[in-house]
Amino acid sequence: MAYDAIETPFGKTEKIIGGSAVYVAYAASNFVQPINQVSIIGYDFEKKELESLKERGVSLEGVEVVSDKKSFFWSGKYYLDMNSRDTLVTDLNVLADFNPVVPDRYQGSEFVMLGNLAPRTQINVIEQLKERPKLIAMDTMNFWMETAMDDLKIVLKMVDVLLINDSEARQLSGEYSLVKAAKAVMKMGPRYLIIKKGEHGALLFHNDNVFFAPALPLESVFDPTGAGDTFAGGFMGYLAKTKDISFENMKTAIIFGSALASFCVEKFGTERLKEISHADIDDRVKQFVDLVNFDIALV
Amino acid sequence: MAYDAIETPFGKTEKIIGGSAVYVAYAASNFVQPINQVSIIGYDFEKKELESLKERGVSLEGVEVVSDKKSFFWSGKYYLDMNSRDTLVTDLNVLADFNPVVPDRYQGSEFVMLGNLAPRTQINVIEQLKERPKLIAMDTMNFWMETAMDDLKIVLKMVDVLLINDSEARQLSGEYSLVKAAKAVMKMGPRYLIIKKGEHGALLFHNDNVFFAPALPLESVFDPTGAGDTFAGGFMGYLAKTKDISFENMKTAIIFGSALASFCVEKFGTERLKEISHADIDDRVKQFVDLVNFDIALV
Repeated sequence: MAYDAIETPFGKTEKIIGGSAVYVAYAASNFVQPINQVSIIGYDFEKKELESLKERGVSLEGVEVVSDKKSFFWSGKYYLDMNSRDTLVTDLNVLADFNPVVPDRYQGSEFVMLGNLAPRTQINVIEQLKERPKLIAMDTMNFWMETAMDDLKIVLKMVDVLLINDSEARQLSGEYSLVKAAKAVMKMGPRYLIIKKGEHGALLFHNDNVFFAPALPLESVFDPTGAGDTFAGGFMGYLAKTKDISFENMKTAIIFGSALASFCVEKFGTERLKEISHADIDDRVKQFVDLVNFDIALV
Repeated sequence: MAYDAIETPFGKTEKIIGGSAVYVAYAASNFVQPINQVSIIGYDFEKKELESLKERGVSLEGVEVVSDKKSFFWSGKYYLDMNSRDTLVTDLNVLADFNPVVPDRYQGSEFVMLGNLAPRTQINVIEQLKERPKLIAMDTMNFWMETAMDDLKIVLKMVDVLLINDSEARQLSGEYSLVKAAKAVMKMGPRYLIIKKGEHGALLFHNDNVFFAPALPLESVFDPTGAGDTFAGGFMGYLAKTKDISFENMKTAIIFGSALASFCVEKFGTERLKEISHADIDDRVKQFVDLVNFDIALV
């Protein structure tokens, strides 16, 4: 949970609410409630934002509030292609001493999503869970591959699903081909691998199976911040709602994740995610069906 | 019809047969025969390659043979990502004085594919056709946008389908968003627009409709030369076979085009295209169905 200041070719924000856990929570709460949030914030985190999360069924019992420090802050600037961005400011603030504590009431959570933090912190959370969840998914990034690869290898063996982008998959595996990269990454632990390709969609790998979900071609991508986390939240939320972790159901979950992500990028930060209804989500999912649906008559 | 010398991270060829018209012909001949080829070659074009085309039902009546000049020659080198390439040599040779003549026997052709040549040459071919074909598709490239935009605007008004890649669509329209680019390009003439995104698939636009066909995730792309032309040949071949130019049938045609292109890149040049059978194509198309097929239950 964090504050972001974002600049895109279409505009600029002051500090707005952000952070992986916020995007995941907003997306997943469309499918299941409560969302058992574990995070850390500073004295500057606005009460109205916490209220807004509570109204969405997000439990804040696991969110530590530090009274003499500020929340994590990130500032970045996107360029026209929206795939590349410059980080202008990263203030760790409260995150420098984050020691997540899983409240008793969260024990028994069946679907666990670990945001992109130090692998050691991710391990720490998993080790606090008394019962093995039905499904553990995690995100990570190139920074941890470069600075904490040993820990990363350990946590990869503890999870079921890894969500990373294409360049991260290449870096983690040392393979350029995403098909070869996927095989190598799955050998490191996760039985399911989701490779996110931004505007080019996402791939789900499991054993020898592969599924491709396109991104919706949009007139304009206003702000891509949080799209990957929103995707993850939609994916996990749909699985938690249906309680079915088969490959077949994961395909559908990825479509819902893609649909949520397509809303996220339409406005700054979480703004659009706060507005949308179940009917909006269903309409968007139908657009995905139309986008890829074709009849086939073989030659 | 040309000779190419290709270098990729996986190997290097001597001069091998290539050229848009060759790739289109090999792909389309899986669906319909004869293919009425219009092109120009030099004295160096091997007889066995002409025989091989004839065996595939390719009529060479419209192929001019110049006895004292060499065939068009292109040499290029690909890098690891296979999306960028350097042109090492371009010898126009016979192509410098190409004046296509459509033989009488070709009159009445219902499906016409215009390869990537000077727009003036494309206009010249269309003007030789006594009867308006059922469907005219064309390819073009950035070079013609920079050097022959006036002619390009004329030919765009004479065709039904334009096939270009994403950067060409952006250049032609001046729009970064592909959705906005598509709308702008369709206003310039073609009712259907196919935007090819290489390993990221292809988009078909028509009025307010959009269809997305993924590219098959492959273990290795051996040589991308000709993949776009093979895609076009598969697309037009399937339409010519089914004689149905509805948007719905074009979706299926694009899947067949993508399937053919996925074979093309597996070996150098036309090698793989010469080997494959109808059963191979059907198997590959079924892989596309599996790749994008999902069940949906709305929230």
